[in-house]
Amino acid sequence: MNLTNHQFRLAARPVGMPKRSDWTYSQEQVPDPKEGELVVKALYISLDPAMRGWMNEGKSYVPPVGIGEVMRALALGRVIESRNPKFAPGDFVSGTFGVQEYAVSDGKGVFKVDTRMAPLPQHLSALGMTAMTAYFGLLDVGKPKPGDTVVVSGAAGAVGSVAGQIAKIKGCRAVGIAGGPEKCRYIVHDLGFDAAIDYKSDDMRKSLKEHCPRGVDVYFDNVGGDILDAVLAQLARGARVLICGAISQYNNTGPMKGPANYRSLLVNRASMIGFLVFDYAERYPEAVRELAGWLAAGKLKSHEDIVGGLETFPDTLLKLFTGENCGKLMIKVADA
Amino acid sequence: MNLTNHQFRLAARPVGMPKRSDWTYSQEQVPDPKEGELVVKALYISLDPAMRGWMNEGKSYVPPVGIGEVMRALALGRVIESRNPKFAPGDFVSGTFGVQEYAVSDGKGVFKVDTRMAPLPQHLSALGMTAMTAYFGLLDVGKPKPGDTVVVSGAAGAVGSVAGQIAKIKGCRAVGIAGGPEKCRYIVHDLGFDAAIDYKSDDMRKSLKEHCPRGVDVYFDNVGGDILDAVLAQLARGARVLICGAISQYNNTGPMKGPANYRSLLVNRASMIGFLVFDYAERYPEAVRELAGWLAAGKLKSHEDIVGGLETFPDTLLKLFTGENCGKLMIKVADA
Repeated sequence: MNLTNHQFRLAARPVGMPKRSDWTYSQEQVPDPKEGELVVKALYISLDPAMRGWMNEGKSYVPPVGIGEVMRALALGRVIESRNPKFAPGDFVSGTFGVQEYAVSDGKGVFKVDTRMAPLPQHLSALGMTAMTAYFGLLDVGKPKPGDTVVVSGAAGAVGSVAGQIAKIKGCRAVGIAGGPEKCRYIVHDLGFDAAIDYKSDDMRKSLKEHCPRGVDVYFDNVGGDILDAVLAQLARGARVLICGAISQYNNTGPMKGPANYRSLLVNRASMIGFLVFDYAERYPEAVRELAGWLAAGKLKSHEDIVGGLETFPDTLLKLFTGENCGKLMIKVADA
Repeated sequence: MNLTNHQFRLAARPVGMPKRSDWTYSQEQVPDPKEGELVVKALYISLDPAMRGWMNEGKSYVPPVGIGEVMRALALGRVIESRNPKFAPGDFVSGTFGVQEYAVSDGKGVFKVDTRMAPLPQHLSALGMTAMTAYFGLLDVGKPKPGDTVVVSGAAGAVGSVAGQIAKIKGCRAVGIAGGPEKCRYIVHDLGFDAAIDYKSDDMRKSLKEHCPRGVDVYFDNVGGDILDAVLAQLARGARVLICGAISQYNNTGPMKGPANYRSLLVNRASMIGFLVFDYAERYPEAVRELAGWLAAGKLKSHEDIVGGLETFPDTLLKLFTGENCGKLMIKVADA
């Protein structure tokens, strides 16, 4: 093979928002695969809030990306060469292929993607890791009952939009929190949420009281910060607060804001529960089947925010943190 | 009857620490009991951190004490007159009799106390509401398994001292957090905790790492604030953080401090769970029987911090918030 690979490597640990100088755009030849390896040509690279955490030093649920390493990212690609018996050239696959045009993999954590089930980009959105997060977080951790009021923050985002729609499918009242009238319109009119709260302009407490008159039974939190505090003040007895993410705090250079209203857990006999989607890996196929069924039946809508060109990565990533994206953000690297 | 009753009534809602001027010391005749009522002479009045919360305006798990009302308090007393068929003069009883010498009650929420089971003051400590809180919080909410590391804050206090001892009885490693060398010595040498951390002088993170080398499986939190944050940073996978109280914040006049490290819940798939002992009211007798058995067998030690004289109430209450008390704080009002 004689292929040139372009890559984004982590040059420095960002302070606050990642800057262009935190990245190196590198170029190298794609090595020949060794026995057991395969070469994947990246087609779509997933951009996710969690990537910001992977850029920090320090212990977390996965090791940080090392300085000089290719940035970690989930991606969809096509196998172009294989010395691994499980994969053949032409296979569509998903895996942690990184922010680069070509990845050489030993096949671990690589899954074949069935494009008859849904168009390729949807395997990063409504059938992807963000949807797994919404599915297992809401259903297994949140355990909503029909009639429960489920509030979702980051409701126009990849995880939140799916969580809210699953809540509706399960017979709950779904209230989404999002930024700006466009996203609020989108989650109510396009996705079928019962109500939307615009955290940029609405009085959070008043709106939560209005839209959750019997309190919040399940809160699926993607944002943390003041929004988490506002929802804590409106919990119903026995509420479950799912800690999925805290995007409002990821680029914080000051002290992390903890939820000052956490004592509401005591008054309401409520729980705040952390979870990680990776713990459900064995059950991903079950979730994919159910989500694909809902997609096919028109009960679940998928929206991808697709930006063209690997070279846009440093800027495109920031859309997650400035609240500019709607739906699942990804970069299209190449045509299939 | 011709009895004079002295009472502490709430004169003003305190800002920060309750001041003498937040109380009125009133005097009135004890009224004759009506049909169904009984008159109780107070012997021991329980002083509890929760009382500070009852003095604040605003919604909580019970209504606030009204301005001008007798301060709410649990107490032990003796029935001196009864027109209620369930109680007879001479009966020892517990109930929410308030900070006063005599209470007239309709019998609701009044329970007979069996002084053969344990000396009278222990019915406010090792067999009282604080022990119920420790028992149901630790066992039903925390669900410790033998070998788990259980950390308890406020470990020399009425709830914490019992929670840590129950953890030991159940085969766990019990690590207590308390203020000052005397309390630390007390919980290790007298109560049998495996280790003590002095939050006033020890490096919390270092000490927690040293004494909880495999992380914290159950944290029974009575204090909130910086100590909660330090423990959150040391959780084991699947940890349960029980929110029982937040005494460090009760007299806070600034913004409430939320746990900045709450994202540790996500990384460790942990839960922060609020509970209220009142939800277990039907099972109090079961807990009292088991605790009395442990007391009799010498497995559970009870320590009462008894201060003489109703008139000391405004100052004695403050001992809870300045960390001066050790064991269950109560006022002895009269001899039986």
